[in-house]
Amino acid sequence: MGTVTQLLAAIADTGRDRRRGGYSRAAYTSADRELREWFTAEAAARGLAVETDANGILWAWWDLYDGGTRRPESSRRGALVTGSHLDSVPGGGAFDGPLGVASALAAVDRLRAREVSGALVRNRALAVAVFPEEEGSRFGVACLGSRLLAGAIDPARALNLRDADGNTFADVSRAHGLDPDRMGLDETALGRVGDFVELHVEQGRALGSPEFAGHGEHPGPAVAVGSSVLGHGRWRLTVTGQGNHAGTTLMEDRADPMVAAAQIVLAVRKLAAAVPGARATVGRLEPVPGGTNVIASRVDLWLDVRHPEDATVADLVERLHGQAQKIAAFEGCAARLLEESSSGTVHFDAALARSLEHSVRRTVPGAPALATGAGHDAGVLASVVPTGMLFVRNPTGISHSPEEHVEDGDAEAGVDALADALEDLL
Amino acid sequence: MGTVTQLLAAIADTGRDRRRGGYSRAAYTSADRELREWFTAEAAARGLAVETDANGILWAWWDLYDGGTRRPESSRRGALVTGSHLDSVPGGGAFDGPLGVASALAAVDRLRAREVSGALVRNRALAVAVFPEEEGSRFGVACLGSRLLAGAIDPARALNLRDADGNTFADVSRAHGLDPDRMGLDETALGRVGDFVELHVEQGRALGSPEFAGHGEHPGPAVAVGSSVLGHGRWRLTVTGQGNHAGTTLMEDRADPMVAAAQIVLAVRKLAAAVPGARATVGRLEPVPGGTNVIASRVDLWLDVRHPEDATVADLVERLHGQAQKIAAFEGCAARLLEESSSGTVHFDAALARSLEHSVRRTVPGAPALATGAGHDAGVLASVVPTGMLFVRNPTGISHSPEEHVEDGDAEAGVDALADALEDLL
Repeated sequence: MGTVTQLLAAIADTGRDRRRGGYSRAAYTSADRELREWFTAEAAARGLAVETDANGILWAWWDLYDGGTRRPESSRRGALVTGSHLDSVPGGGAFDGPLGVASALAAVDRLRAREVSGALVRNRALAVAVFPEEEGSRFGVACLGSRLLAGAIDPARALNLRDADGNTFADVSRAHGLDPDRMGLDETALGRVGDFVELHVEQGRALGSPEFAGHGEHPGPAVAVGSSVLGHGRWRLTVTGQGNHAGTTLMEDRADPMVAAAQIVLAVRKLAAAVPGARATVGRLEPVPGGTNVIASRVDLWLDVRHPEDATVADLVERLHGQAQKIAAFEGCAARLLEESSSGTVHFDAALARSLEHSVRRTVPGAPALATGAGHDAGVLASVVPTGMLFVRNPTGISHSPEEHVEDGDAEAGVDALADALEDLL
Repeated sequence: MGTVTQLLAAIADTGRDRRRGGYSRAAYTSADRELREWFTAEAAARGLAVETDANGILWAWWDLYDGGTRRPESSRRGALVTGSHLDSVPGGGAFDGPLGVASALAAVDRLRAREVSGALVRNRALAVAVFPEEEGSRFGVACLGSRLLAGAIDPARALNLRDADGNTFADVSRAHGLDPDRMGLDETALGRVGDFVELHVEQGRALGSPEFAGHGEHPGPAVAVGSSVLGHGRWRLTVTGQGNHAGTTLMEDRADPMVAAAQIVLAVRKLAAAVPGARATVGRLEPVPGGTNVIASRVDLWLDVRHPEDATVADLVERLHGQAQKIAAFEGCAARLLEESSSGTVHFDAALARSLEHSVRRTVPGAPALATGAGHDAGVLASVVPTGMLFVRNPTGISHSPEEHVEDGDAEAGVDALADALEDLL
């Protein structure tokens, strides 16, 4: 049914962002709907039965789910699930999310061929899952679909989240045929999942680094097995000042929240740079009203903070908040911090990780174990089901950018590794 | 036909911005169209004949224009024109623009009553004009309508300007019934104008300051006569860096244009504060792609710089550009400056200013002459026809903000002053 590269080529025109470059495929936009329709059609072409659960997650079942164990002789309970997400950050790359979904479909093709040839005997059901709003680009909370499924966010809070146009998640969900009243922790859907394995493009440069990449004839491993997901969170910092006319207000009469916000951006960088292993970013900043000839009355900026130690994240954010308040006060402004989401460092299931390493190393000798600084649905699900991840090499490490890249050969190596890992778990 | 306050009350619900507060009435949006329809209806109710010229400027004629001199015995050539604009900055106040338009309509009522009673004999035609896109909030160039009329902007450049959604000014104009091919310097329309007088809310706190405001029983003058418009301009500064993932990119591996932009915002404030009389503002800043978990690949920020001396504006911008490039280079980024618009300091016609002062002081003793830091269509037209301005007190000086305010009594004093000034010029 084609290679991963061929599968991804079919959606290469969906959600292109001509202004930013790359793709803008926010959850429940027309681009996202097109991607979900593409997935449903590809799954159906493979004889998988696709259903949408109460939280908008797509599940494509190989053999309709029959209660967790397809064959009573199986010693393992629950289905084996793989998959990822299809939404993107604004101006994102082609692989973050879709590579895991396309690789899952391609792995199903490999496994089916092995079953036909008699090389594979399955003892449990397999499903491919697609999680909505993984990036949090539209409603501000990353991994919103998996958080709802796992009970990791209060549905009332989720339903009240608003996108930039003021639409609530409840209204948008309803418009997409979901029932907001049914959203939240879904014990039935979770009960069907025995293990979850997510394949994802690597979003750092570990596999592309000299440590692993090898030299000349030996390009090094193209696939790694996830060990943990760095703790991280998002906070919105609102700096309020005095809106006024840019031409008539003397410099000394101003309480300009943009000037305060600029100092806060620099404080974020300075504080994070002083803590080994910490990453802190302001990638989104919105002055209100945002006119060229207007001193802003308010600036909203978003903090993304990550570190392997949860206590360090908390400490860093607390110090940033303190500094932001001091800076704001000095400028005649005020600063208020609001946590939008926060997740502790997640260690993946040790037994599953060992199984994945064993399987992957058959075709990718030396595949390393890797901690990731990026959040993933796998990180959320790890708290409720045994979960693991595979990472596919990204030669530059650049991600969340049109320059994100995966070589065709590495993508195929990822599918080989995923198919072997799934086979060993089936 | 009602007071200014009553006239403005009729449009109090048009273009309200619930998110930012105040009004967002960008040119050629539905709010703006509603305001233009309101003006057309109010003008028609006064027997004025409304026409839209090639550049989208509305002209409401008291006695249809008959070639410049309604009565051959008149020694003055060309019509007397008053008016202002109806568009607003995002989240602007109720008075910036509409006060001048509503005051013009109310002044026509006063003048008509005087004509009926025999107290006024008109020697020239009178028109009320409404200029589109004065704020430049939609297409980035302030006073776009008057600049086109006066030949102060190349129509080809104007037509290629784009709004935030990527629509060109040409397309938007066409959708509003205008012919882009006919836009630009309009000698015929200009030839009909003998003098232009614009009444506007004051956008600083001069009339509200202790110097003028007086004490207790003596509230000081509510109206001032414009002497000059400060030179000012808008520049777009684009800072490009390396977009990447906020979680996986180490602090030391970043080339974050937001960090560079923050330092540039502070440099803008520092440089401007060191130059007496200078004002420099970053009120609009847009990271691209603008995701919370994404290191921006680019930040666009807009500079608004003003000073009475044109050479000082140029020098300030040049030094800002140099500093921006140094800052960007130090952060592994690049900075590029693009001028969007620029106007030298404009001194209003001295003879017209003397006439306005003489007329205004009949009802507003001590009305001062005032330079303004804000740009106005009057500032553009001053280069092609004798032009003057009246300013009405804004007690707080706050403008381009929902808190912009004019007391009812001051608004009526403005109409009295405008009517007297127009009568003396008719």
